[in-house]
Amino acid sequence: MTAPMSPEIVSRFAALVAPRDLLDAEESAPLLVEPRGLYHGRAGLVIRPRSTEEVAAIVRLAAETGTPVVPQGGNTGLVGGQTPDGSGSALVLSTSRLNRIREVDADENLMIVEAGVTLAAAQDAARNADRLFPLSLGSEGSCTVGGNIATNAGGVGVLAYGAMRDLVLGVEAVLPDGRIWSGLRRLRKDNTGYDLKHLFIGSEGTLGIVTAAVLKLFPAPREVATAFVGLASPDAALALFRLVRARAGSALTGCELIPRIGIDLTLKHLAGARDPLGEAHPWYVLIELSSPLQTGLATTLETELGEAFESGVIRDAAIAASVEQTEAFWRIRMGMSETQGREGGSIKHDVSVPLRRVPAFIAEATEAVERFEPGARVVAFGHLGDGNIHFNVSQPPGADKTAYLGRWSAMNEVVHAIVAAHGGSIAAEHGVGRLKRGLLSGVKSEVELDLMLTVKRAIDPAGLFNPGVLFEETPP
Amino acid sequence: MTAPMSPEIVSRFAALVAPRDLLDAEESAPLLVEPRGLYHGRAGLVIRPRSTEEVAAIVRLAAETGTPVVPQGGNTGLVGGQTPDGSGSALVLSTSRLNRIREVDADENLMIVEAGVTLAAAQDAARNADRLFPLSLGSEGSCTVGGNIATNAGGVGVLAYGAMRDLVLGVEAVLPDGRIWSGLRRLRKDNTGYDLKHLFIGSEGTLGIVTAAVLKLFPAPREVATAFVGLASPDAALALFRLVRARAGSALTGCELIPRIGIDLTLKHLAGARDPLGEAHPWYVLIELSSPLQTGLATTLETELGEAFESGVIRDAAIAASVEQTEAFWRIRMGMSETQGREGGSIKHDVSVPLRRVPAFIAEATEAVERFEPGARVVAFGHLGDGNIHFNVSQPPGADKTAYLGRWSAMNEVVHAIVAAHGGSIAAEHGVGRLKRGLLSGVKSEVELDLMLTVKRAIDPAGLFNPGVLFEETPP
Repeated sequence: MTAPMSPEIVSRFAALVAPRDLLDAEESAPLLVEPRGLYHGRAGLVIRPRSTEEVAAIVRLAAETGTPVVPQGGNTGLVGGQTPDGSGSALVLSTSRLNRIREVDADENLMIVEAGVTLAAAQDAARNADRLFPLSLGSEGSCTVGGNIATNAGGVGVLAYGAMRDLVLGVEAVLPDGRIWSGLRRLRKDNTGYDLKHLFIGSEGTLGIVTAAVLKLFPAPREVATAFVGLASPDAALALFRLVRARAGSALTGCELIPRIGIDLTLKHLAGARDPLGEAHPWYVLIELSSPLQTGLATTLETELGEAFESGVIRDAAIAASVEQTEAFWRIRMGMSETQGREGGSIKHDVSVPLRRVPAFIAEATEAVERFEPGARVVAFGHLGDGNIHFNVSQPPGADKTAYLGRWSAMNEVVHAIVAAHGGSIAAEHGVGRLKRGLLSGVKSEVELDLMLTVKRAIDPAGLFNPGVLFEETPP
Repeated sequence: MTAPMSPEIVSRFAALVAPRDLLDAEESAPLLVEPRGLYHGRAGLVIRPRSTEEVAAIVRLAAETGTPVVPQGGNTGLVGGQTPDGSGSALVLSTSRLNRIREVDADENLMIVEAGVTLAAAQDAARNADRLFPLSLGSEGSCTVGGNIATNAGGVGVLAYGAMRDLVLGVEAVLPDGRIWSGLRRLRKDNTGYDLKHLFIGSEGTLGIVTAAVLKLFPAPREVATAFVGLASPDAALALFRLVRARAGSALTGCELIPRIGIDLTLKHLAGARDPLGEAHPWYVLIELSSPLQTGLATTLETELGEAFESGVIRDAAIAASVEQTEAFWRIRMGMSETQGREGGSIKHDVSVPLRRVPAFIAEATEAVERFEPGARVVAFGHLGDGNIHFNVSQPPGADKTAYLGRWSAMNEVVHAIVAAHGGSIAAEHGVGRLKRGLLSGVKSEVELDLMLTVKRAIDPAGLFNPGVLFEETPP
């Protein structure tokens, strides 16, 4: 652990921005705790630059003084990647004031936004230009585009539109030596050398800091049809997914799996929530069809669900009859993390497996976890169509939260072994951060880890960017 | 220039494979010339390993002996990236015998193929499993998947399915030190650290050699509707594109621009070719709608074209009435490079500009080129929907081919200045190779060039992989 930042260095950093862009201890406090309280850090200074040039000046000084830099967006990350360590040596660089939408070009289907723009604000900017920016996730009101890029965020739109990596045409970034790389490409095709933006996307702040990006836009949906479907099992859910995909093709833009316990927790903790179907069912799927064309999707969905009911694939379904009902359906899904959080400690697994393995994975992991921790309640939900399951486990009712969370790593081992047996990933969309850095050596070859380290050392030779994230030991 | 490979080193390499996998001088000759004859190289040895392990052994020896390695697929690249220099110091590593389709998993929509599989063979393997592998380009009968990855190949399917980069889930590669990186990921979502495959995709053989890849598959089209449309100008072509895109959405899977001279050259040089429309028109668009669903695309296309005719956007159109007619339409487009080649020297520009700039770019560049070289014939065709124009210029009839081609760089300067003024790229889909390495410093910032060099030096510190390609001077 390094020494806390000296007062002299603090004042040199402070001199680089206006006083209102420095946070005092009270303002800083919430930025130094990870949302679930898993990580508590300290910082020499929390600073909020207003321009790329200010970021560059700050990073140049960090390079000169050997100060670790922890970039932070909306502080919604779930793996501790935005939290400094406890030494107080680091500078937390908040992007919250890099919040301009620089340009929306509806004709070319792109927009240029700064890193600190919230995902919701980016979606709004697209919507105002009659376009869609399709990334969508539970924390979209506070997470930022920069954080979405740093973590290659996923969410509910990946099935049809891809993850953040697929939605970025170009980036502007400040490199660890303080130079600005202006890579704000607007072209769909450009094969002039290495596609360096992909290094920064998903690098979790370890190779520099993205300050702005060119994002792809899509035609706004003209028709949306949404249904909440009750069914017996993940097997039935997978059968439904395949059936709808075969019929609706690219119009299938959402397919989320929710277990009954997810509905129970919603009814218990979310004010005004109603059971979406008349009776309770073991599992649910939230299905969305949407299209920029007018093709009668509601009828399509009704026909498909009718056939699925006739053939016994599903037990019941409700098609949203209004915007309000559509929103109520999505609120259940988007509130899953939050409502679960109110139920005490939750040990999380953000995993993906090949699609056909999803039912077996859920069954085996549930059995193993219930054996490992009797009384614990599995809440397995997520992006069925991507094979990405948030296999979260709530503490037994009445158990001690701290003691339960102390079993985090041990339970992870149980679940991740089953993920590995199915050829899956232990970090499907939330990234590695501090939480999973110790697990990488178990899932990646030595060659790949070495290649990652080679890249890290080449671009950040002093190891100043987000030390302790992604890599177990700070290079070099 | 380095010294030719010594006989002793030749025999050490030769000992690593079976004698039938070594090419003699006569067999090697065609592999040492770039298809248009722009580059002639020499090699110490041309070798065709049969397995990833053989590749690794060869590369280890290359690293030990300081031998430059030039990876080569189908030798169809258009920028000289597959041709060694004239020193005879290099080993040409042909992937032609790494030609197994290791697996097709229709259920998970993926396949694993080796680098030397031709694109056509990969398409066939997908088709046999009732799936689509959507990359498609003129040289698909001989270009290879490895070359497609190394150059991030584009082609006619990019509009709907993306370029090669978007179609690769994982790669297996031999690194410059001879280690094998097994990155054959099959998952749609996996955020466990840097996405290293993107370094190799589009790296033109400068960071190692890809030996196999996991490719994405798509549902096979059930309906295809194709039309050849005559119109007055690129402006009209762009208007048609926008009209069809708005109506057909993701079912618009091809939109290729062809000038009248392209039809004339086809009629002249392609046996059995017929004029696709009754009368001649200044410009043409080849439109394809396709879908895995049965939605009556032929009717949609007919309606759209009828409206476009009524409103004066197009002058005439023929909808293919049979598979034969569809193929005849595509043969004109896919044969453009070849038929143009029979017309003497052709100076090529593979450029992209923002979509709305396409008509202005074509007009300005045509005027500038005709002023620069009176009598030269502009053949501007390509992927309209991607803003990617192959702005080729055939020599004046009867001119001296060699003298004409001697003006290559000078004409490039004229055209590329106009590309730059429109915010475009001078290497949209063919890559940089040897041909454009000298141009990069004019179109990229110093920071970006330095970042590219940093990556190159980190992964290939001895600079043995494809020296002279992408970089003006061989690092370090």
